[in-house]
Amino acid sequence: MLSFECDYNEGAHEQILRRLIETNNEQLPGYGNDKYCDLAKAKIKAACGRDDAEVFLLVGGTQTNQIVIDTVLAPYEGVVSANTGHINVHEAGAIEYSGHKVLTVPHEQGKIKADVLEKYLEIFHGDETKSHMVYPGMVYISHPTEYGTLYSLDELTALSGVCKKYDIPLYLDGARLGYGLMSSGTDVTLKDVARLCDVFYIGGTKVGALCGEAVVFTHNNAPKGFFTSIKQHGALLAKGRVLGIQFDALFTDDLYFKISRHAIEMADIMREMFIKKGYKFFIETVTNQIFIILENKKMEELKKSVSFSFWEILDEDHTVVRFASSWATRKEDIEKLSDLL
Amino acid sequence: MLSFECDYNEGAHEQILRRLIETNNEQLPGYGNDKYCDLAKAKIKAACGRDDAEVFLLVGGTQTNQIVIDTVLAPYEGVVSANTGHINVHEAGAIEYSGHKVLTVPHEQGKIKADVLEKYLEIFHGDETKSHMVYPGMVYISHPTEYGTLYSLDELTALSGVCKKYDIPLYLDGARLGYGLMSSGTDVTLKDVARLCDVFYIGGTKVGALCGEAVVFTHNNAPKGFFTSIKQHGALLAKGRVLGIQFDALFTDDLYFKISRHAIEMADIMREMFIKKGYKFFIETVTNQIFIILENKKMEELKKSVSFSFWEILDEDHTVVRFASSWATRKEDIEKLSDLL
Amino acid sequence: MLSFECDYNEGAHEQILRRLIETNNEQLPGYGNDKYCDLAKAKIKAACGRDDAEVFLLVGGTQTNQIVIDTVLAPYEGVVSANTGHINVHEAGAIEYSGHKVLTVPHEQGKIKADVLEKYLEIFHGDETKSHMVYPGMVYISHPTEYGTLYSLDELTALSGVCKKYDIPLYLDGARLGYGLMSSGTDVTLKDVARLCDVFYIGGTKVGALCGEAVVFTHNNAPKGFFTSIKQHGALLAKGRVLGIQFDALFTDDLYFKISRHAIEMADIMREMFIKKGYKFFIETVTNQIFIILENKKMEELKKSVSFSFWEILDEDHTVVRFASSWATRKEDIEKLSDLL
Amino acid sequence: MLSFECDYNEGAHEQILRRLIETNNEQLPGYGNDKYCDLAKAKIKAACGRDDAEVFLLVGGTQTNQIVIDTVLAPYEGVVSANTGHINVHEAGAIEYSGHKVLTVPHEQGKIKADVLEKYLEIFHGDETKSHMVYPGMVYISHPTEYGTLYSLDELTALSGVCKKYDIPLYLDGARLGYGLMSSGTDVTLKDVARLCDVFYIGGTKVGALCGEAVVFTHNNAPKGFFTSIKQHGALLAKGRVLGIQFDALFTDDLYFKISRHAIEMADIMREMFIKKGYKFFIETVTNQIFIILENKKMEELKKSVSFSFWEILDEDHTVVRFASSWATRKEDIEKLSDLL
Repeated sequence: MLSFECDYNEGAHEQILRRLIETNNEQLPGYGNDKYCDLAKAKIKAACGRDDAEVFLLVGGTQTNQIVIDTVLAPYEGVVSANTGHINVHEAGAIEYSGHKVLTVPHEQGKIKADVLEKYLEIFHGDETKSHMVYPGMVYISHPTEYGTLYSLDELTALSGVCKKYDIPLYLDGARLGYGLMSSGTDVTLKDVARLCDVFYIGGTKVGALCGEAVVFTHNNAPKGFFTSIKQHGALLAKGRVLGIQFDALFTDDLYFKISRHAIEMADIMREMFIKKGYKFFIETVTNQIFIILENKKMEELKKSVSFSFWEILDEDHTVVRFASSWATRKEDIEKLSDLL
Repeated sequence: MLSFECDYNEGAHEQILRRLIETNNEQLPGYGNDKYCDLAKAKIKAACGRDDAEVFLLVGGTQTNQIVIDTVLAPYEGVVSANTGHINVHEAGAIEYSGHKVLTVPHEQGKIKADVLEKYLEIFHGDETKSHMVYPGMVYISHPTEYGTLYSLDELTALSGVCKKYDIPLYLDGARLGYGLMSSGTDVTLKDVARLCDVFYIGGTKVGALCGEAVVFTHNNAPKGFFTSIKQHGALLAKGRVLGIQFDALFTDDLYFKISRHAIEMADIMREMFIKKGYKFFIETVTNQIFIILENKKMEELKKSVSFSFWEILDEDHTVVRFASSWATRKEDIEKLSDLL
Repeated sequence: MLSFECDYNEGAHEQILRRLIETNNEQLPGYGNDKYCDLAKAKIKAACGRDDAEVFLLVGGTQTNQIVIDTVLAPYEGVVSANTGHINVHEAGAIEYSGHKVLTVPHEQGKIKADVLEKYLEIFHGDETKSHMVYPGMVYISHPTEYGTLYSLDELTALSGVCKKYDIPLYLDGARLGYGLMSSGTDVTLKDVARLCDVFYIGGTKVGALCGEAVVFTHNNAPKGFFTSIKQHGALLAKGRVLGIQFDALFTDDLYFKISRHAIEMADIMREMFIKKGYKFFIETVTNQIFIILENKKMEELKKSVSFSFWEILDEDHTVVRFASSWATRKEDIEKLSDLL
Repeated sequence: MLSFECDYNEGAHEQILRRLIETNNEQLPGYGNDKYCDLAKAKIKAACGRDDAEVFLLVGGTQTNQIVIDTVLAPYEGVVSANTGHINVHEAGAIEYSGHKVLTVPHEQGKIKADVLEKYLEIFHGDETKSHMVYPGMVYISHPTEYGTLYSLDELTALSGVCKKYDIPLYLDGARLGYGLMSSGTDVTLKDVARLCDVFYIGGTKVGALCGEAVVFTHNNAPKGFFTSIKQHGALLAKGRVLGIQFDALFTDDLYFKISRHAIEMADIMREMFIKKGYKFFIETVTNQIFIILENKKMEELKKSVSFSFWEILDEDHTVVRFASSWATRKEDIEKLSDLL
């Protein structure tokens, strides 16, 4: 059975496994106070081009979103998100669990446009009853988005500008950040992200790690007591080394970028393949996620030998499905897929 | 530098690492829906002797306590704990974060005695103003306790009886469960735990895993929507396989018990060594944690070549410290320690 | 200065004040355990035609919504609301504060249509990823709605049917219930509401009381521990008599209905007046709220002698404003208003 | 039936009722934006001798404690309280509901002694594991305490000093503040309270009002967004006038102090009466609460004609009960009580 279901189907990149084995018998302090966490953080700061960044290593994406949003917001504030944002749809209410409302604005291909955000904030602040409403205290975007799309540097700059104008921090969910940064269709670099956002995370789980996300507060702006808040949210890993060693490996010799680039190359091949075979895209993407419109009959047939993700029903006869490549995708599997299409 | 600081100083048992490597390239579904999670759960249920158990794999201990307690309790209920309980002291308020009060009773060597609990419940239910108070809705114990002590089968049976009488679930925090079950000084088996408790967890992090705790609801009593609650708490691991493979390994060929037994043997040697050298125990323990009273001068000297945990100040000249063995403790390190004492 | 700003501009109906005075020196138990609370509850149950109802008296509307929704929902569930619902807009995130997401569906004149709800629930339950999403665990409607509109008996019956089909409780926010029930344009009675909803509240604050809302669980379905939950939410009034005496007065000799009818009669006069003078309605209502489109110039002029509520900007030259009548509206004030239009 | 059960058995002081009636037909803005709220706040600030105070009017005591503590604390902080503190015992977990732990220290006659607090803070800040623990972020005291006792000016000054040393705000729960300030046995004035505390509340419910507590942030230190937080907690009263008018009346012509003094005088008479009749006190108090040890037989007999509060079981034959006077206590009722003793 082939699988293009998602980008977390395999274990970890072999270089990560190797480092876990090599360091296994070392006696290290717990809770992230080990030298590998320190090394990982230093390398991430360097890659971001920010000496004044503060880096924290967490286990998973929803966990990261919950903790960052909950600790950055004041209690009476909510977070602005595209209605398609992961925090608004597929995190089982983790943000609301922490007491905060997700304030939705309409998306455009998964993105928040700067003018839409500005209008939203303008209307809010012009509303005489605003003190009875949830204050927008942060803007959440994902890059790549849930639709596999990317912000251009202009778009990100504009969004950051609106946030600065209203003095609201901009938070970027980078669960698949590597696949965004290594896309052929982007002009946004990691340094741009670190310059334009107040806080973001570099996804490890979907980019070669067993687990792990690296949160970057970009300018000495980590909330007071953040370490204790991590513990309070049940998110502090006793063996913090597991995260440190993995991110140290990912940010050594550009491994994170190289394996992300591999996924993009595989996706580009798949995209061409789909075009050649006459398939239609539901949405144009330049990252590792490909959204295809399938006839239901074809879909049922394919399901027998390939797994992929259901996305949504298009009409009675057609369904939108997602094929994802990853750091682990093998060229021969794409060829096998090609034969089946 | 020797370390007897805690039981999570090293990585994972080699058999666990081997299985992670062997399965690394398999394409598996996410979120715990893989075959290794299924295998692990089946083996744990068998070890517990309970077909009607429901098993869930989580990442860390505080996380597990938070989710289990929050989902089992009704919103207006709190959890009864010894005042020394981990949830009351060293979890940064994770239980209160989830909205519930920790209701404390005095401990005896880290344990809740059945008569103390019964008296507490009797007084509560006799109080005319109880509807203005937090209802005791669960009893939390740890085994081994934070003091390294163990409940006898009689004590656990009595406690379970009081809980049943008042229709309150009994929850056992087994962060170090293996070290309790394999102690020479216990008459409690895993099957006893599974029979006498309503829910408990089998600690992996401190017993040979990179991370991971296995929650066991012992009689088809997992709270409705528990999977979604895990996600809501930010605790759902995308690559659930990481937990499944580890617990599958731990419960294959009794690995969990064998490595726990090793830690106990090492601790027994250390205990004898401390006795021989004339050191005094702060508390008598039969598990992998040893609490020693050190003269401050000696303590400072030792610190130069061994790491151990500060526990508490005893008097002006003496300090209580903790030495812990683990699945990874090497006999030669104990010998080196002996030379230093 | 005339005021048609809202329906809580004055104190309390004189009959309520009179009863507060008459009973003032009686020594009564606290926390709602007094005879007036008992009387009020019995009268409300009778008016609802439900012996099996359970009635609780709370202080305010947002408080009531928060407590009812939080205690009825399971922790992993959210509440479905029209996007215009009060809980979604003007309660400062009180629902999210209690940990629950407000799941929005598009409104039609402030109402949720049965087919919209059914479609929403159908799609949710058909979604393969639903266990990663917030479960719809309750449906919230307001009657009259925030737009002053009303559900017809058919609409309410259909909505209740969908809720029953999916086994989801239906909750009706009756902050202005009296004004809905006494409208000339309704076919819904209090008994219908009590029959078709699982829980609702009868608004006192906006219908003649100093404060107070009566929550009705219609069929012995109050959540376990509800009294303690009220206390836990900080909502238990020490002098519960203040609520008991007021609701006892409101449900004696049909006072609640009579004063609601008065507000409707005043609103009907105002509506005719607006029509005669050539004003346009933003939305057609049959309750005590009237939404008028004003030229901005006229609006500024009017503001000098009348207060009313800003609703929204229609276009560059026009604004939507709200005029509200109430139990306290005086005919002579309407005549004065007429002169100003 | 006589009642000395508590200090909220009657309605409101007649002067308050009179003002509610006189202002009843005035059309006033909602949510505390009326002139009576402004007047009340100005008078309270004057009585406190603090121009830089910020005053908010809330409905009830538990509500007030919940909102103040939740908004002043950082998310990872808890509140230090005597183990007998109202927030720790009789508020149904309202503080924990808001996510914060109540950190208890042993009481002395209901009070926290400065040296006990200092020791607690010293140990906490000296603990190497403190980042895994709940940070003490506020100190909560009640004055009078739950035992009817009072802090002396020296005690309060010392406590305030420790708080300042550790930069932790001091919060005083003044549910019965009037009865404390008017006691013959106190040297603490309202101005002292306002000078030594960072925030406190002046209880209305137990001192002559139908409901209402006035929160005073003493030096422009109200948390940002406090108004919205009140709404978010479901605690914003639509007819804020009800609170404004009552506190305006209470702080006009020293009404608050005069009626508090009356309660003290009545209590003093009762105390003498109990002494004369040979009853023993469980604890010596100088406020409106009197704790008497009764033989059980006598207690049962008394119960037939007087109501009082059960406090606790002393031994097999004796029970501690509480008699409370209030602003509404009538001298003839005390005489009747005297005949029964």
